[in-house]
Amino acid sequence: MLTLYSFGPAANSLKPLLALYEKGLPFTPRFVDPRKFEHHEEWFKKINPRGQVPALDHDGHIITESTVICEYLEDAFPDAPRLRPTDPIKIAEMRVWTKWVDEYFCWCVSTIGWERMIGPMARALSDAEFEEQVKRIPVPEQQVKWRNARKGFPKELLDEEMRKVRVSVDKLEKRLAESEWLAGDDYTLADICNFAIANGMQHGFAEIVNREASPHLLAWIERINQRPAVREMFARSQSEMPARAPAPAA
Amino acid sequence: MLTLYSFGPAANSLKPLLALYEKGLPFTPRFVDPRKFEHHEEWFKKINPRGQVPALDHDGHIITESTVICEYLEDAFPDAPRLRPTDPIKIAEMRVWTKWVDEYFCWCVSTIGWERMIGPMARALSDAEFEEQVKRIPVPEQQVKWRNARKGFPKELLDEEMRKVRVSVDKLEKRLAESEWLAGDDYTLADICNFAIANGMQHGFAEIVNREASPHLLAWIERINQRPAVREMFARSQSEMPARAPAPAA
Repeated sequence: MLTLYSFGPAANSLKPLLALYEKGLPFTPRFVDPRKFEHHEEWFKKINPRGQVPALDHDGHIITESTVICEYLEDAFPDAPRLRPTDPIKIAEMRVWTKWVDEYFCWCVSTIGWERMIGPMARALSDAEFEEQVKRIPVPEQQVKWRNARKGFPKELLDEEMRKVRVSVDKLEKRLAESEWLAGDDYTLADICNFAIANGMQHGFAEIVNREASPHLLAWIERINQRPAVREMFARSQSEMPARAPAPAA
Repeated sequence: MLTLYSFGPAANSLKPLLALYEKGLPFTPRFVDPRKFEHHEEWFKKINPRGQVPALDHDGHIITESTVICEYLEDAFPDAPRLRPTDPIKIAEMRVWTKWVDEYFCWCVSTIGWERMIGPMARALSDAEFEEQVKRIPVPEQQVKWRNARKGFPKELLDEEMRKVRVSVDKLEKRLAESEWLAGDDYTLADICNFAIANGMQHGFAEIVNREASPHLLAWIERINQRPAVREMFARSQSEMPARAPAPAA
């Protein structure tokens, strides 16, 4: 039995969520509500002591880290539709792209996202409420990030992150101008993991992701949004997301 | 035919180098001399446009990124001794460790290493010589890192990186107190990729990696150093490293 704990179909949570839909694997989605800080609650920290989503429960075994969960699904369900090439050279190409999104692309987009969304959320809390929440965050670096988001990130940092967002968009645009999918001819985890971060940038970063500046990137985002698995993921999540994840027995 | 371009048996270069020795795969080692900035020379940028080692040439196909090269060797040479478990759950455990070293552990150790070694190297150059070298670095972030190293990193940053080094050492020590190898019962790429960064810390970070503070980590470092493949790697590299990599035909 598969249960996926996630924030729903966006950012890192989208990666294993979409992989599950693409592979057609039956699973129980468990929405963890970031607005209620559910990922820092004790019941969830029993599942992932780092207090981070997504996390996959497969027959009681917990797999963490969004990209690793995607790879795990490839290894554990070899008969489901493949999202990883078979040729070792193509696998390596795919891996360079999934590694890049985890080490570069996701961080710069994330900082801007935190400034826009987490900052106001943190400032809506009183000092005491905020400290109460921060105390429950198990990863020290995440505590620091929450404090910085509440204060507002320094302009210098935001400018540097925006520069990296532009570098990332250029890199994706250049690649997608020469190839239909990131790792070559086939739709793979390289596309899913980068789509997780890029989807929505046509709205949130419309000044750099648009028909004129990055036509191939935009076409790729639209192409992925047309896939049956993606449509199913968004449609189902719409109806399932409001459901609160019940606390599992300890 | 396999050719590995590397800085020799340390840091990220050590990962695929040791994997090749452990797997018993015949290959041609090509030492790229960092003191001569060979990785930023045109001939090498034709191999890896990012100007970074290690890079593997397998029958003319170039594979980059140290961890990806290690995974590639597992995929491309399934009959050689395995360094990746077969159980999907164990593979995921291994991957969380190889991901962690790439995203956290290697960076904090690297900044301290740059402060100690690259800083003095950069300051030994005249302003003009330094600018000449920086101009040839293809990755903008690397240019910034060289400039910062030459100036000397701010104390605040070095303190923060040293805090992360301590967090890393504690994490490794805790894990190795309960398990012989990082991903469980078997020696895997989790050990190789972390050893690449941890080996030498018993000298360079002796105040935190020693018999009293981190006995299990130290024992693990010593245990790996006793492996025949590791001894062969260090012995051979000693004799081969001074050889300069010849520029391949363009």
